[in-house]
Amino acid sequence: AERSAARLGCAAVDFPVAVVLPAGGSGERMGLPTPKQFCTILNRPLISYTIQAFERLSWIVTVVVVVATENHDLMLNIARKYNHTKVKVVHGGTTRHRSIFNGLQAFSNTTDSLTPKPKVVIIHDAVRPFVEEDLLLKITLAAKEQGASGAIRPLVSTVIATTSEGYLDHSLERAKYRASEMPQGFLYDIIFQAYQQCSEFDFEFGTECLHLALQYCGTNAKLIEGPPTLWKVTYKRDLAAAEAIIKETLSMSACIIAGAGAEAVELAKMLQKNLNMMETDVISCAKESNTEYLSKTQNFIHISMSGSNFSGVPEMVKRFEDIGHTRLYPLVVVWVQLNMTKQSVDSQKTDELTAFMGLASEVIQGNVLLYGIEINHSKVIFLMSYHYIC
Amino acid sequence: AERSAARLGCAAVDFPVAVVLPAGGSGERMGLPTPKQFCTILNRPLISYTIQAFERLSWIVTVVVVVATENHDLMLNIARKYNHTKVKVVHGGTTRHRSIFNGLQAFSNTTDSLTPKPKVVIIHDAVRPFVEEDLLLKITLAAKEQGASGAIRPLVSTVIATTSEGYLDHSLERAKYRASEMPQGFLYDIIFQAYQQCSEFDFEFGTECLHLALQYCGTNAKLIEGPPTLWKVTYKRDLAAAEAIIKETLSMSACIIAGAGAEAVELAKMLQKNLNMMETDVISCAKESNTEYLSKTQNFIHISMSGSNFSGVPEMVKRFEDIGHTRLYPLVVVWVQLNMTKQSVDSQKTDELTAFMGLASEVIQGNVLLYGIEINHSKVIFLMSYHYIC
Ligand SMILES: [Mg+2]
Ligand SMILES: [Mg+2]
Repeated sequence: AERSAARLGCAAVDFPVAVVLPAGGSGERMGLPTPKQFCTILNRPLISYTIQAFERLSWIVTVVVVVATENHDLMLNIARKYNHTKVKVVHGGTTRHRSIFNGLQAFSNTTDSLTPKPKVVIIHDAVRPFVEEDLLLKITLAAKEQGASGAIRPLVSTVIATTSEGYLDHSLERAKYRASEMPQGFLYDIIFQAYQQCSEFDFEFGTECLHLALQYCGTNAKLIEGPPTLWKVTYKRDLAAAEAIIKETLSMSACIIAGAGAEAVELAKMLQKNLNMMETDVISCAKESNTEYLSKTQNFIHISMSGSNFSGVPEMVKRFEDIGHTRLYPLVVVWVQLNMTKQSVDSQKTDELTAFMGLASEVIQGNVLLYGIEINHSKVIFLMSYHYIC
Repeated sequence: AERSAARLGCAAVDFPVAVVLPAGGSGERMGLPTPKQFCTILNRPLISYTIQAFERLSWIVTVVVVVATENHDLMLNIARKYNHTKVKVVHGGTTRHRSIFNGLQAFSNTTDSLTPKPKVVIIHDAVRPFVEEDLLLKITLAAKEQGASGAIRPLVSTVIATTSEGYLDHSLERAKYRASEMPQGFLYDIIFQAYQQCSEFDFEFGTECLHLALQYCGTNAKLIEGPPTLWKVTYKRDLAAAEAIIKETLSMSACIIAGAGAEAVELAKMLQKNLNMMETDVISCAKESNTEYLSKTQNFIHISMSGSNFSGVPEMVKRFEDIGHTRLYPLVVVWVQLNMTKQSVDSQKTDELTAFMGLASEVIQGNVLLYGIEINHSKVIFLMSYHYIC
């Protein structure tokens, strides 16, 4: 689905699209000192996942991130560390609406070549990291056609109207209502005009961009149902939920590097058969010609037959660094050492073990999680560096 | 807060209260083969956590769990395994409302001594495990007084009305509306009468018990704002969120058992000072006289000075089994061995390590997670059995 969306995206979106990402909120509701958009999941700030969801799409030109002044440097550092080249950081206002307006104004400054005026602007939340290309395409195309569009979800709870004394007045008929979510899309001229015209009351108490487009420009937004993963990371528990989703996604594919030895190839084939829940590729080496396979996944099983005891690991890690593969997600390497010859003595084993553990604790600094398995004809030694991916 | 609620509960609730827990739903939305209420968190089914939230309260007499026929035996086994003595299992209907009505009918059968007719009945969801005594008290007392009561939460998203063509019609003013959640409380006679009178349409398409009480008995429910942890475990990611909450709760206290040796007592005091995020007790032994301390927490640090190498572990584990402490939550025991005398030889160390690992893999069957730390004057050996509590 993602791939066909990508093909469709390049073809259908022949106009400039930009994103405004308000990230000015404080983390009060989380019960955490850090605002939630800067909390880390697998060692990376939440907002970086959200930015990447847009930045990976060729048809999105610019991502304007609106942050509180005190987080300006933090945000610049995040953009640098995770190579977010499409990001432009601007300062937020005292409310969500003021922050969004500040973000939109960045495009009206025609002297900045990083922020040319877009045809369509997508407004999203920094704390909704899981947004897929197919939904973004639908939102963008509907905004181009109708002037405004927004993601919706069915209501999870019955909505009730309350009396002023705190009693049930009536309950709403669920089928007629929807929860308004993000992302939302707008013709830039429409949403910018709406914000230019709206009142102080709107800036202070308004919550809904779609409502402003309707009130000030008469634009009825097209509503598009999104998946449940659009939910907003709000509470501390949501960080655990987001981590679970990321881990599950990362665990869906693997690449097996098997060299040329007959036993290694046999083992690779057996593994591929048994890993039938994952999409697997088997290749013969981690050389440049295989970059396509190396780039497809974050999980690698390297089966080695040489007696050289993990000496190939540093070279392999270097290769991943070269293709920038460890920047966004941790990389899992399981190094399988097949020793079909006679066993080495126990003291030698202990030295190898110590060396491997040292290597593992070194490469983890570069976001590589290294595990080792040594298979002798009589026994299996499992060397675990760090348990990360469930 | 919990303790004062408990005192208040015994005093204020001088009438019989029962619970109906509909657990008939299927797990479709989770993308899982198991219905979500039977999915396990830390090796225990979700529904057992929910049952325990009620069963621990002295003023709640009975918990009627309504399950699909095919899950009857599974549910009985869960009740047996986790010692849910207040549970009565009844069969569900084809909709949520039919299941709740079946649950309520269990109390109208006056020949069953386990289910005497209650004054107030609380209706809850099997998939909302985190419900605290103070909220249950408020719901119960309001139901007694007003006839009906229900937990509410602020709306997390703007609610919008849609046109039949899928466009925005208008957005609701958020302040006037609330999300209706669970638990809800009713005078038994009112909700039973409402269900006896309601139509086939209500049974088939209705969602809101509060609405039935209003429509058929003219009872306006009192609405009570609950905490965010009332949320419904709906998606697979919610299981990870629930696990994070349970782990956090379990990590809030510890008991240090330090014996009489001067170095052990000193280490215990130092630990207590440094574990200032947790509530800690220091006691001298795990004997019967200290059951009060042992029962307060799931986390134990045992500091041993004898040279007898973990020989006290099985006895300690037996003690926890005797007080039924490992039934509901995993127990974490960190065994600290202080060896102030000269070091033993390396081969002896290896044997001890092997023995400890064997012991750890044995006691984990009984829900005890055993970690070991050996402190010699020159080096620290860390023996990890299983990483569970973050
Ligand atoms: Mg935000
Ligand atoms: Mg249910």
